[in-house]
Amino acid sequence: MAATGAPTRAGAPAPLRWDGERLHALDQTALPWEERVIELADGAAVAGALRRLAVRGAPLIGVAAGYGLAMDAAREPTLAALDRAAAVLRSARPTAANLGWAVDRVVGAARGAGAGPRLAAAARAEAEAIDAENAAAGAAQARLGADLLAELGVRRILTHCNTGALACGEPGSALGAIAALAQREAAVHVLVCETRPLLQGARLTTWELRRLGIAHDLVVDAAAAGLVRAGAVDAVVVGFDRMAANGDTANKVGTYGHALAAQAAGVPFVFVGPTSSIDPAIATGDDVEIEERDAEEVRRAGGELVAPADTPVRNPAFDVTPAALVTAVVTERGVARPVDAGTLAALLR
Amino acid sequence: MAATGAPTRAGAPAPLRWDGERLHALDQTALPWEERVIELADGAAVAGALRRLAVRGAPLIGVAAGYGLAMDAAREPTLAALDRAAAVLRSARPTAANLGWAVDRVVGAARGAGAGPRLAAAARAEAEAIDAENAAAGAAQARLGADLLAELGVRRILTHCNTGALACGEPGSALGAIAALAQREAAVHVLVCETRPLLQGARLTTWELRRLGIAHDLVVDAAAAGLVRAGAVDAVVVGFDRMAANGDTANKVGTYGHALAAQAAGVPFVFVGPTSSIDPAIATGDDVEIEERDAEEVRRAGGELVAPADTPVRNPAFDVTPAALVTAVVTERGVARPVDAGTLAALLR
Repeated sequence: MAATGAPTRAGAPAPLRWDGERLHALDQTALPWEERVIELADGAAVAGALRRLAVRGAPLIGVAAGYGLAMDAAREPTLAALDRAAAVLRSARPTAANLGWAVDRVVGAARGAGAGPRLAAAARAEAEAIDAENAAAGAAQARLGADLLAELGVRRILTHCNTGALACGEPGSALGAIAALAQREAAVHVLVCETRPLLQGARLTTWELRRLGIAHDLVVDAAAAGLVRAGAVDAVVVGFDRMAANGDTANKVGTYGHALAAQAAGVPFVFVGPTSSIDPAIATGDDVEIEERDAEEVRRAGGELVAPADTPVRNPAFDVTPAALVTAVVTERGVARPVDAGTLAALLR
Repeated sequence: MAATGAPTRAGAPAPLRWDGERLHALDQTALPWEERVIELADGAAVAGALRRLAVRGAPLIGVAAGYGLAMDAAREPTLAALDRAAAVLRSARPTAANLGWAVDRVVGAARGAGAGPRLAAAARAEAEAIDAENAAAGAAQARLGADLLAELGVRRILTHCNTGALACGEPGSALGAIAALAQREAAVHVLVCETRPLLQGARLTTWELRRLGIAHDLVVDAAAAGLVRAGAVDAVVVGFDRMAANGDTANKVGTYGHALAAQAAGVPFVFVGPTSSIDPAIATGDDVEIEERDAEEVRRAGGELVAPADTPVRNPAFDVTPAALVTAVVTERGVARPVDAGTLAALLR
């Protein structure tokens, strides 16, 4: 249960720590300037932390939501109360797939256990199981990802957004694989894209890499393509939010541009993430709806207004990378390579 | 002499206005929040304005430097004094090609005129000639650019950085062509890339487009590729800093990624700029040295720190777009299309 265990390998407080009664969360809105741990005592507190992005990253959101319900079940162990708590949590981040999935699992386990102490125990056990499964999946992704990168001779890596312990619990998806590679190979170096608009690369990935002792340089997102062309990296390695059955993949906006640059330069482009992020119900990338987020995210940077206050904005949170640009997909169940409907279906069987 | 004339077509103070004795500059560091006009009374004041980017953009830098020397020549009309003033101006922005070029022209004209009132008159006449030639070149680029875009059926355009009156004097290079197209076609829409790290797109291009009444949306640079893939634009149109003899071209970092996205989506990619930015002494893009700028530009956004204070950074100011990705180059002397050593050499003959 690395997500809720001891301090991270990076020597920092764990992004989530479950003490058996309460959840302790590293407040990611305060990073990288302050390592502030907040105590979350019930589901409403967890929902609030998710809403304001104190706890973020699809896998970590699921783990936190599970413990939120377990705490509420301990306090008022009835199905009616649990359903109310589930509704509050579900609404915290309506687009996070892992949130609804984790809430469903805990409510389902509790429903089968009656009421009273048995309901509370069942909810808690399911939350702990989600945590443990997530940690095991992350460890497997990291190991398989490092194996692949080592096989490809990769040392210098470009990454985007944040996919480390802060997003997934230890060790992370793409950043977990990079960290595992760095444990085997001394010369690993990471180019970190700042990831506008919310700057998760600049704020969070740099912070994690520093704590892990992995060499890195921060770049603006627009610098990535030219540096890839100039031979600055051996591979692009990123996480993913939702992969269609054919391998077309939605991820944080900017990912597609990095994939084009990798193809043009002839360097591998690798996705790392859990099989739960592969959605076989979606045929191709054309069927993925792209969420447009608030204009203020673009009008501001680091809290400061950087454009006229009412400038019209487009702010797609994701883009779609066609499967043809993807060298390999690393999951906890194995590696799809090449990436197509057949290799992905084999992973899910 | 549009650069130093009446208020811009955008209804704002001119980026530079020469009243015959002094230079009045719109302070671009205060935009878009305040339209502050500063009076520059001598070459040292011009040099200071260039250093702090109150006046910026290669063509505008050249025009301002010319007037700076003219003012110094009027005050102390000797060649010795003019040489001292030239050294101060030349050092203000050592990498700006147009700066040294304009200083050389004014000093050369003055040198041929002796001393006293005739020296002062020659310096002033040369500065005014540089201004007038720049304005004529901009007008021709805008007209030829709009012709090309109209021929290609382009209405929705992605652009990068700032290439309008603020960079070039009226009407601008790429933005001048877009504005000229908008005068012919009502449906013109511009996607403006914010252009990290210094955000010239967010701060300056949005401000110019609003004053011109041209519909636009601001996007983070990382969103460009996905939007181009999704069919949001008919063309990518940008300025350029330095073009090699074979058409490989250095421009503001991020340009290359937009060119890859345009190629993948099958939409035209067009450079607009003066022939003075084509450097036949450079054979290919491999020979262009890429300036790395200060790390603080990346660590900060809108003045605020957005990464750990001592995070290592790479900050290339430019990238290189290979000629093969370029549909056409529009200059004041005509259009190169396709773009290769032959079509470019023909433009320069």
